[in-house]
Amino acid sequence: MGSAMSVPGRENGHEVRLVGTMLDREIISHAQKTGEHTGLGRKLPEGVLLYQLEGLEKALGGADLIIGGVSSFGVQWFRDEVIPKLPPEIPVLSVTKGMMDMPDGSLLTYPELYEQTAPGRAFCAIGGPCTSYELADRDQTAVVFCGRDEAVLNKLRSLLQTSFYHISISTDVRGVECAVAMKNAYALGVTAAAGLSEARDGKLHYNSQAALFGQSIKEMRKLLALCGGHDDNIIYGAGDLYVTIFGGRTRRLGMLLGKGLSFDEAIGELSGITLESVVIATRTGRAVRKLIEQGKASAADFPLLLHIYDIINRGAQVDIPWEKFTC
Amino acid sequence: MGSAMSVPGRENGHEVRLVGTMLDREIISHAQKTGEHTGLGRKLPEGVLLYQLEGLEKALGGADLIIGGVSSFGVQWFRDEVIPKLPPEIPVLSVTKGMMDMPDGSLLTYPELYEQTAPGRAFCAIGGPCTSYELADRDQTAVVFCGRDEAVLNKLRSLLQTSFYHISISTDVRGVECAVAMKNAYALGVTAAAGLSEARDGKLHYNSQAALFGQSIKEMRKLLALCGGHDDNIIYGAGDLYVTIFGGRTRRLGMLLGKGLSFDEAIGELSGITLESVVIATRTGRAVRKLIEQGKASAADFPLLLHIYDIINRGAQVDIPWEKFTC
Repeated sequence: MGSAMSVPGRENGHEVRLVGTMLDREIISHAQKTGEHTGLGRKLPEGVLLYQLEGLEKALGGADLIIGGVSSFGVQWFRDEVIPKLPPEIPVLSVTKGMMDMPDGSLLTYPELYEQTAPGRAFCAIGGPCTSYELADRDQTAVVFCGRDEAVLNKLRSLLQTSFYHISISTDVRGVECAVAMKNAYALGVTAAAGLSEARDGKLHYNSQAALFGQSIKEMRKLLALCGGHDDNIIYGAGDLYVTIFGGRTRRLGMLLGKGLSFDEAIGELSGITLESVVIATRTGRAVRKLIEQGKASAADFPLLLHIYDIINRGAQVDIPWEKFTC
Repeated sequence: MGSAMSVPGRENGHEVRLVGTMLDREIISHAQKTGEHTGLGRKLPEGVLLYQLEGLEKALGGADLIIGGVSSFGVQWFRDEVIPKLPPEIPVLSVTKGMMDMPDGSLLTYPELYEQTAPGRAFCAIGGPCTSYELADRDQTAVVFCGRDEAVLNKLRSLLQTSFYHISISTDVRGVECAVAMKNAYALGVTAAAGLSEARDGKLHYNSQAALFGQSIKEMRKLLALCGGHDDNIIYGAGDLYVTIFGGRTRRLGMLLGKGLSFDEAIGELSGITLESVVIATRTGRAVRKLIEQGKASAADFPLLLHIYDIINRGAQVDIPWEKFTC
């Protein structure tokens, strides 16, 4: 996704300098030789400048904006190893969706995590439905930039808005980040329903998927309230959930679970990959379980999330708790 | 859908008497001969008793519940010709989704319309995502029964809840009915985005669909507030929208519009069928336009609905107003 952001950047005529992490050495060197980004499976836009990690400081010279494109697994590395090297006056825009759960059951957004390291800096983040491949193809895409400073957000929007990349802004960082992090957990539930029906007769059915979609929205709104985010952010969560249901590895995992595989068997089928959706579902489920223990949340409000947690972490098979969804 | 309701009815061992309208004569006589329902394309459950319209009074004898299964186009006929014949002490459960727009721009739900004819009677209705084919196949399905009397709703639930048909209840009739009626209009918008991307490269893309899904949720919440319904009903609207996007003729129409056909051309391709989604989108758009004229609503809150209205009623081509969606 970080690399795909070069597309709206170059579209607006900016100089774009793409720096790989230590895990991206081959992607960068291949792109330097061929112009092709093997992660995206596409040519990068003309004129993108490419750097290995050692070139970070050089790449930062004179920058107006830094976009952080690590996955959830790179967030702590980014905080500890990269943020201290970034010029403090330049805003940082993070594409990473997710949250950390704290020992007391509270959930921390990534911009908040970064602010603990570098207080007073302008950390912004992107929410809303956007797959990197489609952004790279200049498909119509609508996202939201969130951060504490509206003037900074307006500047970022003016840098990156294009005829295909449409940007809303919001100062409700917790609300946006909480809504769009959740989609990773709930997409597993909806796609498990798709897997169940496909296992039954080889076809995708939609009543059950739609029921779980509605239940996901219901629980996401409760989680938004627990996180202190405004309810209006559910529109970003709903869009993000929709796009995640139809794309990539989270769908494949959910379908395998729905077909009756245990979590370990399904991960085995997927060659042991580690998925952000699994991490987020685990963190969120763990946080909600702690809040329930403390009497700050009700198990009756989160039957789907708790079931997903049990599938991932406690060896449960998919067995949708339908009767717990009715009111 | 009315016929599909015989499946949970028979599952619970009830005597089910299926009465056709004057438009269903062939369906009923074919089913009497073969047991097959040509509308559903499936066998009806064993033991369903079948009646032509003239048998209505006989079929009503001793009934505990009357389920009304007409489409939006049959609502006024049902009100004027059928309701006066129904025993007033028996509750009526309607499967029809939609609303009527009044000259002042207000929207009237079908239970409210029926109550104008027969005040004091218990009119209930079903919302939530449920395609008749999948219900007939006993797929897992979650719906909501709404009505003014909670005791009646509990009775209806006890009659029809099964291991595959899960029923919530709500006394917020306006909220439920408004949320689930809207899906018919907005599904045209989301599927138009699918048509646009398919026209581009033959593939379904999801960033744009997801953006329109989120925008639909945003506008549906505003409409819910205008109708005086509680915001929580958005979960039923979201589920209903999801299932409508993936099913049937509304999807086909939206895809054709997205591919660049005018509304008249698209309807021509679909052999001139008349779709409930078109009627609902027109009524809702007309109501919102009136409320805007009266200063009771803002055009800025409904850019997608107004565009869908213009496509259907004013010859506009699909041209998604992306810039109006950002905030």
